[in-house]
Amino acid sequence: MSKLTDVPKRILIGRALRSDRLGETLLPKRIALPVFASDPLSSVAYAPGEVLLVLSIAGVSAYHFSPWIALAVVVLMFTVVASYRQNVHAYPSGGGDYEVANTNLGPKAGLTVASALLVDYVLTVAVSISSGVENLGSAVDFVIEHKVLSATIMILLLTLMNLRGVKESGKLFAIPTYVFVGAVFVMIAWGAWRGLVMGDSMEAPTAGLEIKAEHQGLAGFALVFLLLRAFSSGCAALTGVEAISNGVPAFRKPKSKNAATTLALMGILAVTMFCGIIGLAMATDVKMAEAPATNLLDNGVPVGPDFVQHPVISQVAEAVFGNGSFLFIVLATATALVLFLAANTAYNGFPLLGSILAQDRYLPRQLHTRGDRLAFSNGIVLLAGAAILLVWIYDADSTKLIQLYIVGVFVSFTLSQIGMVRHWNRHLRSEQDQAARSRMKRSRAINTFGAFFTGLVLVVVLATKFTHGAWVALLGMVIFYGTMTAIRKHYDRVADEIAAAEGPSDDSVRPSRVHSIVLVSKVHKPTLRALAFAKLTRSDTLEAVSISVDAAETKVLREEWERRGINVPLKILDSPYREITRPVVEYVKGLRSENPRDAVSVYIPEYVVGRWYEHLLHNQSALRLKGRLLFTPGVMVTSVPYQLESSELAKRRAKKRAEWNAPGAVRRGPVDTPRPRDPAGK
Amino acid sequence: MSKLTDVPKRILIGRALRSDRLGETLLPKRIALPVFASDPLSSVAYAPGEVLLVLSIAGVSAYHFSPWIALAVVVLMFTVVASYRQNVHAYPSGGGDYEVANTNLGPKAGLTVASALLVDYVLTVAVSISSGVENLGSAVDFVIEHKVLSATIMILLLTLMNLRGVKESGKLFAIPTYVFVGAVFVMIAWGAWRGLVMGDSMEAPTAGLEIKAEHQGLAGFALVFLLLRAFSSGCAALTGVEAISNGVPAFRKPKSKNAATTLALMGILAVTMFCGIIGLAMATDVKMAEAPATNLLDNGVPVGPDFVQHPVISQVAEAVFGNGSFLFIVLATATALVLFLAANTAYNGFPLLGSILAQDRYLPRQLHTRGDRLAFSNGIVLLAGAAILLVWIYDADSTKLIQLYIVGVFVSFTLSQIGMVRHWNRHLRSEQDQAARSRMKRSRAINTFGAFFTGLVLVVVLATKFTHGAWVALLGMVIFYGTMTAIRKHYDRVADEIAAAEGPSDDSVRPSRVHSIVLVSKVHKPTLRALAFAKLTRSDTLEAVSISVDAAETKVLREEWERRGINVPLKILDSPYREITRPVVEYVKGLRSENPRDAVSVYIPEYVVGRWYEHLLHNQSALRLKGRLLFTPGVMVTSVPYQLESSELAKRRAKKRAEWNAPGAVRRGPVDTPRPRDPAGK
Repeated sequence: MSKLTDVPKRILIGRALRSDRLGETLLPKRIALPVFASDPLSSVAYAPGEVLLVLSIAGVSAYHFSPWIALAVVVLMFTVVASYRQNVHAYPSGGGDYEVANTNLGPKAGLTVASALLVDYVLTVAVSISSGVENLGSAVDFVIEHKVLSATIMILLLTLMNLRGVKESGKLFAIPTYVFVGAVFVMIAWGAWRGLVMGDSMEAPTAGLEIKAEHQGLAGFALVFLLLRAFSSGCAALTGVEAISNGVPAFRKPKSKNAATTLALMGILAVTMFCGIIGLAMATDVKMAEAPATNLLDNGVPVGPDFVQHPVISQVAEAVFGNGSFLFIVLATATALVLFLAANTAYNGFPLLGSILAQDRYLPRQLHTRGDRLAFSNGIVLLAGAAILLVWIYDADSTKLIQLYIVGVFVSFTLSQIGMVRHWNRHLRSEQDQAARSRMKRSRAINTFGAFFTGLVLVVVLATKFTHGAWVALLGMVIFYGTMTAIRKHYDRVADEIAAAEGPSDDSVRPSRVHSIVLVSKVHKPTLRALAFAKLTRSDTLEAVSISVDAAETKVLREEWERRGINVPLKILDSPYREITRPVVEYVKGLRSENPRDAVSVYIPEYVVGRWYEHLLHNQSALRLKGRLLFTPGVMVTSVPYQLESSELAKRRAKKRAEWNAPGAVRRGPVDTPRPRDPAGK
Repeated sequence: MSKLTDVPKRILIGRALRSDRLGETLLPKRIALPVFASDPLSSVAYAPGEVLLVLSIAGVSAYHFSPWIALAVVVLMFTVVASYRQNVHAYPSGGGDYEVANTNLGPKAGLTVASALLVDYVLTVAVSISSGVENLGSAVDFVIEHKVLSATIMILLLTLMNLRGVKESGKLFAIPTYVFVGAVFVMIAWGAWRGLVMGDSMEAPTAGLEIKAEHQGLAGFALVFLLLRAFSSGCAALTGVEAISNGVPAFRKPKSKNAATTLALMGILAVTMFCGIIGLAMATDVKMAEAPATNLLDNGVPVGPDFVQHPVISQVAEAVFGNGSFLFIVLATATALVLFLAANTAYNGFPLLGSILAQDRYLPRQLHTRGDRLAFSNGIVLLAGAAILLVWIYDADSTKLIQLYIVGVFVSFTLSQIGMVRHWNRHLRSEQDQAARSRMKRSRAINTFGAFFTGLVLVVVLATKFTHGAWVALLGMVIFYGTMTAIRKHYDRVADEIAAAEGPSDDSVRPSRVHSIVLVSKVHKPTLRALAFAKLTRSDTLEAVSISVDAAETKVLREEWERRGINVPLKILDSPYREITRPVVEYVKGLRSENPRDAVSVYIPEYVVGRWYEHLLHNQSALRLKGRLLFTPGVMVTSVPYQLESSELAKRRAKKRAEWNAPGAVRRGPVDTPRPRDPAGK
């Protein structure tokens, strides 16, 4: 029976996982790379195209700036990677940018970073899924014809997968990521061979088209602005670089060193692929336009709204491998897969960051449990909802979504790097060893340059993208920031209110006696159990109280009480309007005002049931009564449970739920190292 | 401050009413009549039209059958009124048809009647509001052009009004009802005077149209069937007659006699108005068709879809008073108002019936509180939702909705009358007094005829209306019946499960000692209070338990514990995954398995807060922990409340809520007479 009904549940929510299996794996570099790098590596699937798109505004002639822009992105990438290599050495606990900013720049900076990261997670899902759908669409027509629908379905699938709590496996990430990287390198090598050695002329499908420049002959400030905008778009390649700094605990020892090496490897792979694809795009004459329907011309005629502008990576693959060829399909599939894995990253990061924020009381306290299913689920659903909303608003158009994307990333880059500079300054004040001092000074120099460069990029991004959508991301950050500040304020206020004064105890009027009441409706097992328990905890006086809503029933109760010889006095409260709550509350208040120094202990027999609808049928009056009683000072309410047979169902469910394991455990590392507070910090 | 924020609440939810004001008024007949009769009297606004509509299928020649149909309706009305006069004498407690059927025919019949009545209440709202909108529409064009919208708004207004808990005032009902009755009588008299004495030829706006018969020259069985269908539609005039039998306690003494007189008065008014309107319709040549667009011809041409077919009562009023005349407007307004009051009747009846059903455990137990705001609101919202659904499905077309309406009414009429026959039979078995016996025999004869006649009508209604929509009403009844049976079965099963065996107590293993645990996170006032309370209720052992989720915090806790010299041992449970629930549950289970005869009492400090969002920020872990602990046998959980300042808000809210007074109190009568069980009944 139960086996059968379990099947659909199993399929939807997944087999329960033991929490203690968590500790088994530490990641070697070859697995850590794909686990952490799917997000930054996958961005080469859209970043090169975004550069060309922006340049096309000034016409095809502007394309010759693209190598310079690529170079700028490469320099930025190396800067960021070098900076984060300092982070992972200094903060190996996995707290990431939030921890760095919080410790070194104070809670406001920390909260800003956290808000930026939360917004970023949402955008990672929206952008990666949209781009994945576009890439898949270059091989499968249906997907591109129903883009928003396909993207929504993909997000829902990912959501379900993560709610199920699939154990993140390194291999799951490794295969598609390595296939993707391999395929891109094969493409670059094969393209270079064909172009440079064989002298083949490879043509992208859009090679024959012309671009109608929106602004012909742009020069001076306008041109610089355009180039900066193109550079901002190219910076999309850097999203996700910070992931490794959150995952240091997951690495094999020496953790920080391995993490730093992986970071470097990732940086090299990413820039090579980014430059290779831009180079191939130039060689195969790819044409991209922001509004292809009107600004791409086929023999002077606009291609019209039916034209589908495929991503650069797929156009290049078509030129190099041939449309529909085996390698073309492999690359398209691997690209889409890697993008979906990138989106999955956000599903792991969002609840994790939430739990860290909850620990610092910026979010509801109950979220702080690691891998708490309920908290986790709430986070996942919030993330998915926000991402789906964005996908719908922006038609699952990765180009539009990218305008929002980079702000958050660079806010956290910049603040994190500034924080690192402070960190080194502080340590330099106390460090005496000259070798250590010079290492620190070198690190500080790197982080200073990193802070300066990423800060500059942030300004550029804000200037060039604000009206294109960056304001939406900023608005999102403000909302997160405001909400979290309000929550923290609330907790602080309550903490002040409940703070105990000095001295052994200060609870103003300490009760001296306790008067116990057992609520009785009928004489049945739950009532008898409640009576037995109430007797067991010895109070000064004990009586049973029943509310008379029906004269006949009350009579039966009184008779049975006597017949059974229950040696607890039974008090009947009249309730002409068949109310339960009011007579009890008034009775209890009466007791309190007669003897203000007495505490009143109310025992309520409660049914423990197993099915959701049974909750509607039981305990509702008890719950409401309890809610009202708790407002009366000097009252405590004891639930004496009586487990109905159906409660076994709920017990089994609860057990399963307790054994559930949050996804993303692999990248978080097996040990829940408590985050060390910086000793010199606030 | 609080005054200001109260204003919108006041407007929406209404000033709180004192429950004890309830007992002040008993209804004199002149007020009882409009309170209870707005529903049956208002049906003359649509019933005559429905008769003509059906007849028109056989062409205008069939209209000459209408007096005969009116006669049949009159006979039926007198039968039903005479029958119910017996009911109010025999069952003065206000239980109505449900009580009669339940007591005399058993719970299945009772439940059938209840299901029928619940469906009926929904339809009363849908039909009355739709018809009200149609009548208002004869004076205000906008309303008829946006019929569904207007009807929905009206339902929402009524819902809000009832959720506010407006005290039902007799006068509120009296004025529109008397204006309506008066206006109809003036119309009938004036029409008779003009037609019979002055010899004026009055013409309805549709007098000049012709009817295209759908079935020309209908004869034999087909004609009989059509006449029966017309009669079924005319029976809509009888809906609501049973209302008085639910309201006997509200009458002044002698209650039963006054109720019976009011019933008779209502019957006479209703039939006079019904016949008068049919007569005037004939005299003024009103033409009605089921599908006016195609079947009403103007000079041989169909009037088309733009034609609005106004209700008979407004057409007649136009003919008699003149379109747009003062009396015409008065009548249209009064008609609409009386129909809205009729709908309001259902808003009072639905939750009341729900509370009676809850008392008999057919609905969740907590609904049985009289005028419980929460229960009441749920009922109101369910009723409004269902009515709005019907209005949307049937385009707020009263003609379509009436097809569903009459089934339920006649199901309860028939079962109630059969029940009354049984009632007399039973009493006749024991009654010796000859005068009483002959009175009973007379009553029995009346009820027997009533049962026979209403049963016959039920068969006719089912036969003629089943495919026209009656099946929907039956389906609704089946759903209500099934749900309520299932709920009752559940309660019965639980009652069996928890029934106490004989003997002074049978709670298998009685615990002999109690081990108390106070959950501690920090040393603050709530914790200190919980400790104080736990000490007060003396248990065999007492310890404080804290879950270590953060080594540093735990250290602080331990130090403060010692510093303050709290004389309760502090036990720290490790929680590597920062879980709260699991370590506690496992610790408690461990205690239980070490000493299976010990009970464990867990004290949880709980924050009492005042704002809804504060609930999200506090006590969530405590709630979840409590939920899990209750599954463990031998455990009781005590909430020790600590009232935060904001809890004052909730306290004030709760007080207001407690003082709220359910609408419909007037018609229920001031005293909550417990329903006497028929001594010979089960």
